Amino acid sequence: MRKCDWCNLSEEDRKMLLIENTTWAVCLADEQDYIGRCILVLKRHCSCLSELNDDEWIELKQLIVKLEKCFKNTLGAELSNWSCLLNDFYKEEDANPHVHIHVRPRYKMPMELDGTIYEDEEFGHHYKHKKASVLQKEKLNVLYSIMKKALDEYE
Amino acid sequence: MRKCDWCNLSEEDRKMLLIENTTWAVCLADEQDYIGRCILVLKRHCSCLSELNDDEWIELKQLIVKLEKCFKNTLGAELSNWSCLLNDFYKEEDANPHVHIHVRPRYKMPMELDGTIYEDEEFGHHYKHKKASVLQKEKLNVLYSIMKKALDEYE
Repeated sequence: MRKCDWCNLSEEDRKMLLIENTTWAVCLADEQDYIGRCILVLKRHCSCLSELNDDEWIELKQLIVKLEKCFKNTLGAELSNWSCLLNDFYKEEDANPHVHIHVRPRYKMPMELDGTIYEDEEFGHHYKHKKASVLQKEKLNVLYSIMKKALDEYE
Repeated sequence: MRKCDWCNLSEEDRKMLLIENTTWAVCLADEQDYIGRCILVLKRHCSCLSELNDDEWIELKQLIVKLEKCFKNTLGAELSNWSCLLNDFYKEEDANPHVHIHVRPRYKMPMELDGTIYEDEEFGHHYKHKKASVLQKEKLNVLYSIMKKALDEYE
């Protein structure tokens, strides 16, 4: 099988691992365009949603439930934007896609994190593609700890 | 319960109904920014993915399988972009979201439909938000018939 960078989490990714189950790993994204943005990575090489097996599909739903609960109750998000696009893989002539899902919490009200206020200026609209991270690098660990604590408490 | 325009398909929507099961209806979108774009509408009022019940979740997967097969085998798409955003509902102060999912087939190669060639100029990149429909209105029925025929043949 061809090498795929998504088949194994890097050491850097592993530091941002928030929650996992048998088939998926969820990492806090480096680029916090919307506070709490995560990436759900399938632990098996698989090229599209329709090829997920039953266990993977059921376990995906369990993570959606936990993440939406965390976004709402812990971060104060109003809703979540979910997407499974995979476009970037197709920049290569011989694409080798690996299923992953992006989730962006969206905020109606300004949210406070570690003394800084963040506003979702596009609330009620499509997320802004290629929006720069709004979170200072040094606050990524603070956000990670808050979310990890909440997620660890869910059954 | 508050009135929700998404709880019942309009007569116009029903003309574009491609496939349905107990819990979801799939309509061909009016706005064909990417040829074959569909909307999957939950047949029950429900505000977010995490509140889908087990049947709804399982039936969603069955539709994903059929749609990706149709996009690939019948339309020649390379991949599909899936998204569940729900942002528009939150333009209203008292939002009343109804779960629906957008899917946009993406094309590496030019595709031909009823004598016209269509190119996915953003292939390998995020779908263009607010892209105008590329399909002439009079060809929407042609596309519908082709997709309906294919989908009707799947078990």
